[in-house]
Amino acid sequence: MQTFMNQKSALVSEAIDGLIAASGGKVQRLDSTSHARIVLRSDWDKSGVAIISGGGSGHEPAHAGLVGAGMLTAAVCGDVFASPSVDAVLSGILAVTGAKGCLLVVKNYTGDRLNFGLAAEKAKALGHRVEMIIVADDVSIPGAARPRGVAGTVFIHKIAGGMAEQGASLEDIVAAVTTANTKIATIGVARDTCTMPGSPKQNRVEADMVEIGLGIHGEPGIETARFDTSKALVIEIARRLEVAIGSHGNRYAALFNNLGGLSGLEMSVLFNDFMQTPLAARLDYVAGPSAMVTALDMPGFSISLIELDEDYTHHLIAPLDCPAWCNLAKLTPVKEVAAPFLPDILDVGPSTDDAVRRVIEIIAECCVELEAEINELDAKVGDGDTGSTFAGAARAVMARIDQLPFADGAHLLASLSDIKSKAMGGSSGVLFAIMLAKASEAFKISQDWPKSLYAGLSAMQQYGGAQLDDRTMVDALRPAFESLMTDGSIANAAVQARAGAD
Amino acid sequence: MQTFMNQKSALVSEAIDGLIAASGGKVQRLDSTSHARIVLRSDWDKSGVAIISGGGSGHEPAHAGLVGAGMLTAAVCGDVFASPSVDAVLSGILAVTGAKGCLLVVKNYTGDRLNFGLAAEKAKALGHRVEMIIVADDVSIPGAARPRGVAGTVFIHKIAGGMAEQGASLEDIVAAVTTANTKIATIGVARDTCTMPGSPKQNRVEADMVEIGLGIHGEPGIETARFDTSKALVIEIARRLEVAIGSHGNRYAALFNNLGGLSGLEMSVLFNDFMQTPLAARLDYVAGPSAMVTALDMPGFSISLIELDEDYTHHLIAPLDCPAWCNLAKLTPVKEVAAPFLPDILDVGPSTDDAVRRVIEIIAECCVELEAEINELDAKVGDGDTGSTFAGAARAVMARIDQLPFADGAHLLASLSDIKSKAMGGSSGVLFAIMLAKASEAFKISQDWPKSLYAGLSAMQQYGGAQLDDRTMVDALRPAFESLMTDGSIANAAVQARAGAD
Repeated sequence: MQTFMNQKSALVSEAIDGLIAASGGKVQRLDSTSHARIVLRSDWDKSGVAIISGGGSGHEPAHAGLVGAGMLTAAVCGDVFASPSVDAVLSGILAVTGAKGCLLVVKNYTGDRLNFGLAAEKAKALGHRVEMIIVADDVSIPGAARPRGVAGTVFIHKIAGGMAEQGASLEDIVAAVTTANTKIATIGVARDTCTMPGSPKQNRVEADMVEIGLGIHGEPGIETARFDTSKALVIEIARRLEVAIGSHGNRYAALFNNLGGLSGLEMSVLFNDFMQTPLAARLDYVAGPSAMVTALDMPGFSISLIELDEDYTHHLIAPLDCPAWCNLAKLTPVKEVAAPFLPDILDVGPSTDDAVRRVIEIIAECCVELEAEINELDAKVGDGDTGSTFAGAARAVMARIDQLPFADGAHLLASLSDIKSKAMGGSSGVLFAIMLAKASEAFKISQDWPKSLYAGLSAMQQYGGAQLDDRTMVDALRPAFESLMTDGSIANAAVQARAGAD
Repeated sequence: MQTFMNQKSALVSEAIDGLIAASGGKVQRLDSTSHARIVLRSDWDKSGVAIISGGGSGHEPAHAGLVGAGMLTAAVCGDVFASPSVDAVLSGILAVTGAKGCLLVVKNYTGDRLNFGLAAEKAKALGHRVEMIIVADDVSIPGAARPRGVAGTVFIHKIAGGMAEQGASLEDIVAAVTTANTKIATIGVARDTCTMPGSPKQNRVEADMVEIGLGIHGEPGIETARFDTSKALVIEIARRLEVAIGSHGNRYAALFNNLGGLSGLEMSVLFNDFMQTPLAARLDYVAGPSAMVTALDMPGFSISLIELDEDYTHHLIAPLDCPAWCNLAKLTPVKEVAAPFLPDILDVGPSTDDAVRRVIEIIAECCVELEAEINELDAKVGDGDTGSTFAGAARAVMARIDQLPFADGAHLLASLSDIKSKAMGGSSGVLFAIMLAKASEAFKISQDWPKSLYAGLSAMQQYGGAQLDDRTMVDALRPAFESLMTDGSIANAAVQARAGAD
């Protein structure tokens, strides 16, 4: 199975119901007994110009997700990649159009042009004021007679929706979007096609290849190219976009759009690459990276540009509370703060306490001596390196033995913690480092070795998650430290540790 | 190539730079000469409690995308699916923690527990107030000793971030999130694993199967099940969640999370299915469907629940201006408006004009007569059905010939448009319907047949996009209508149509 769905025939209707249910009442649908699949603003009173868009489904969040104050008044949704019927579009127009009329925003595909067009004429015949704008922003084929309408269409939605929300007239909105429509350019790229619901996935694109200039319906790109690095790919797309927009000095906004299947990590890397291109210096604003006009699950992206113009830029950049719309950010230099100084805990300097030093040395010698034996034991249940891990830590302690602050228990424990965290591999290094760090903190207050070690062990358990009888070193350490707290006898503690280990 | 990137070693750093560049200055990074990959709020002044999270990368937008006022103060990012180092976490703590201290929000994975834990202890040793909460919300294995931390973690981010933004103390925040942490449950499902950058994709999951209960690192789920319908799958997940949370009467919020690779259409269908489960009746709020905690490009989803509690619900639902955070919506019944009445244009009733009727009849008879011949011609360049398309339309006109309003040119043209749009297949049906609808509108004003037909043709060209000499019917119709406008002679118009067609 390639698509999570029920019946293919119900896919779009069910998705619309899901979208509406998740909207918190912000959007609603047209009567479900109608065949038309239309999402409308719940708060719409027909007092302003209605902005209607739509087309085939499969481009989510476009178009149904873009319905809301300041964007679309209604979206008319067809089947996956298929235009809605004339009657559906007409229903949408009649449902939302008031005295100020409506604008249909249509992507340049024959089916959409004709079905929205006929619906527009029918609505006019019924006495409504209807205008239609056809967006054809795909510049991947230089000089194409009939370029496709792709992701740049959302710029038109935003400008028209913003103006309508502020009470602009249909004439003024048409004038602004007619200007904007000549100043949009988009190119898309993908490394694979999309999965059509209910059909097995085509394997059209070879490994290590990308298609450049594809549309949003899985139709083939105009060119297949070898993928080298994301940087090289983005430089090429930016170069083609610059050819399309020319070199005059105006400023631009960009939409960095996920065609559906790229991870967030990839989108951010690609956007970072884009910021290094010469084109980036001509940008003032960016929307995204975000999935705005997708082709189902297509692993690709598109970059759309719009030339900024005082007639509409403020409508384009005005923030909007529409879950799917990514507000434009003003591009600013990347800021950074200085990394904090990480103090070396050994900075306190050495001090002397021969008894304490002797204990540390004995432990270290013991660990080195037992290296092979512990490795051998570990090999029976694990990867046979525990002896070396402990011996390595012991050698690291011995290497710095003359720098340790033996007369200062808290600093001594902190220093040992630091050495373990840096020199002892595996989880056990971090676990001992935690125990010793916590013990250091406790010793500052209590000046009591057994209690401090016990507090350290508790922290180790807290962070590590092991309980008594989980067959970890806790089984030996806990009874030993408890015994130490009771009578202070290291001999008794050793007996308890052995019993716990057994 | 399975991942758009440059070098794998630079993947996370480059993605962070891209994220920061797209943020409009809202977030910044720690000095890039540091090895730590840390994203921080740009406006942070250390006056409140700092909320720090992080862990392995590959879960975008978590965690770097969740940095902002009301959410995280900083995110410490490891390599893909690998915990950040102790020093990186310590750097993050030291960079943002002021007098009110910080809270570390850590998902229950050993690496994160230990590295964040040791960093916490080191920061405490340096005199900072540090608390840590370990989230373990995965309930897919009933009674698991150490459940994983997955998508429900963002509930903790939101509650802690909201409280911190309002000036709450570290104690109060810890108290609230400690309560919340016991009331979160998540289960994930996917139909395939994710693609590790730089590695070939595993094909672990068979076609028609899904894995239930998987984590967010591509680790196998606890169970493989056959996929039937999305509804059946969601019912099963909801059932398991209800087992985990028990049947007591409290209310819940849900996060409907895209694990990375599902289309928007699928997510909405799955959410719609979820709204039909018994569990849905226990929900007051929902976040999503949205990609919040992903596993790279994994085609799957997770559902997280949190029991509502007066201690934290208002912080959970407070709206937030963080691009990646999907604000919670209050669940309300799905609203719908009645579909508008689509008037039948034939409703005006029949009227008589024998001359006009005769013209229509001759055209219709001619189309029927030429059916085979036109089909034959069309078969040489197309699919051989144009004759049948025209004949079908003609028969539809003849079937309603007695209902047509022949004495009323505008309504006659509108009626013919309506019949074409309903009875004539292909693009040509819609094109003729557009021409006739526009001609109807023009006739209302001019009462002039040639001018009206010419206006209709112009609309057909506008919506259809064909120009003269594009080898379409425009080549015949345009010179014919132009001739008609000049001298009103149908004979001359026919000559011009033939010349244009030739």
